[in-house]
Amino acid sequence: MNFTSGAPVSELLSLDRIREQLIRLEDTIIFLLIERAQFSHNPIIYRPGAFEKETNFNGSWLEWFLQEIESFHAKARRYTSPDEHPFTPIEQLPQPIIVPQTYPSILHKESYDHPSTNVNPRILDFYVKKIAPAITKPGKGRLEDDGNYGSAATRDVEVLQALSRRIHYGMFVSESKFQSAPHDFIPHILSNPPNSEALAGLITKPAVEAKLLIRLGNKARVYGGEMDADGRVVEAEDEAARKIDVDEVVRLYKDHVIPLTKDVEVDYLIHRLDGVPQEQIDKWMKGAAQ
Amino acid sequence: MNFTSGAPVSELLSLDRIREQLIRLEDTIIFLLIERAQFSHNPIIYRPGAFEKETNFNGSWLEWFLQEIESFHAKARRYTSPDEHPFTPIEQLPQPIIVPQTYPSILHKESYDHPSTNVNPRILDFYVKKIAPAITKPGKGRLEDDGNYGSAATRDVEVLQALSRRIHYGMFVSESKFQSAPHDFIPHILSNPPNSEALAGLITKPAVEAKLLIRLGNKARVYGGEMDADGRVVEAEDEAARKIDVDEVVRLYKDHVIPLTKDVEVDYLIHRLDGVPQEQIDKWMKGAAQ
Repeated sequence: MNFTSGAPVSELLSLDRIREQLIRLEDTIIFLLIERAQFSHNPIIYRPGAFEKETNFNGSWLEWFLQEIESFHAKARRYTSPDEHPFTPIEQLPQPIIVPQTYPSILHKESYDHPSTNVNPRILDFYVKKIAPAITKPGKGRLEDDGNYGSAATRDVEVLQALSRRIHYGMFVSESKFQSAPHDFIPHILSNPPNSEALAGLITKPAVEAKLLIRLGNKARVYGGEMDADGRVVEAEDEAARKIDVDEVVRLYKDHVIPLTKDVEVDYLIHRLDGVPQEQIDKWMKGAAQ
Repeated sequence: MNFTSGAPVSELLSLDRIREQLIRLEDTIIFLLIERAQFSHNPIIYRPGAFEKETNFNGSWLEWFLQEIESFHAKARRYTSPDEHPFTPIEQLPQPIIVPQTYPSILHKESYDHPSTNVNPRILDFYVKKIAPAITKPGKGRLEDDGNYGSAATRDVEVLQALSRRIHYGMFVSESKFQSAPHDFIPHILSNPPNSEALAGLITKPAVEAKLLIRLGNKARVYGGEMDADGRVVEAEDEAARKIDVDEVVRLYKDHVIPLTKDVEVDYLIHRLDGVPQEQIDKWMKGAAQ
């Protein structure tokens, strides 16, 4: 999100604006998947320690890429932005070398900083186990290993960063919905244990999700389609002729992005009252009774 | 290009295969421009020394990004691939830490290694002066400077790398055309000075170029169009509603990519006989007479 456009917090938190960002991120994610799918799976790049001798690093080639790129981006203050989370533990990254931007406080600090809200380890896990192999299936001239380890890992990093941004956007959705009706959320947050299911129910819109999956399939079809030399979209008779498997893109959202976003949203809400004075909570509840 | 798919050199140098790659790179370039256009121009990132104190580097913020990213990519053997050229002088980059891949020798070494064939300084120049400002014009809520210096420079680096790959692909076009009729080229290469104009004439296909520009405009229109919540392409009544200015994309190719590629192609040809034994040249010329 562009937090520095000078827009007031109320506008930054408008659901329309957040949705616009989420829809825009779909384009980025699909495009990056298409770019990754140009290269082979190259399973060796996901194997911990496979390049330990060369890299002096005991994680995988991909994790080495993440650490190197994120170390540089940290210097350029990337992880001071409220919608950016590194995959490398933040304490292993260097400090920003330029003064961080001042962002309006949009999110509730205790929810935002809560370790459980960072789901990057889970993103990395499903990406490596499910997504990378699914979009790079061998066949039709594509080998299992084409040696393009740098190209593949560079694209992996970009996909992962975009997925992380998309999934952690759930925090903005939660904050926006919480602010519009705090009294609906408070009882479920304060129940012991917090009622995750009820909280999830308050933020889930099945119709919106169904629409999202249709839109996503259409986008993958358009962006992943081929154009002939004259720039006309070629209707692929054969699904495999596409640059990306449309069903895999839809499945990625259905099985991973949407459920993980929901976890982020619920987790954010669970900690939404941490550090909030009782007086404020009472005020919110009274607002409901009026 | 995927040089390691095990395909024979003759296939790697087939004009159809090269064209396929060039057409594929159009998609990448358009998408990366669209991604860059999400952020403000941020002119300070192109000003030499503007961040000298923080970065300990006397070039621009963008050049610092190029050097940092390319240093890492060099370690991952990126610049051992025949279609990759760094923007940072290669002697300032570290050695690869993993064994470089063995590529089939496709290009003529003396042409490939000739310093004049690396046009990256010219790519950086037109990109910074013309392209970056053109695709990020302020207005409609976009400021001239939004503080997203890291995001902007990251996308700049990606666009520059893709442009560089696209433009230096000219070498493969030249090699392919040279091999198919060396006797056509040899007299112009050996004339003193070499006849650049005649060489350019041998590799220029105005009809192909005209088609390319039309295709490119169509692609920019499709990829840069908006989709509604249901994933239907929205016909933008207002050009400015698009994610990218279609005319700017076409102009980029017309004014910069195509002419620079031609320079790379001609330069490659001019040095194509460097180090080639006279005996081989005679054989090629005799082939023509038969």
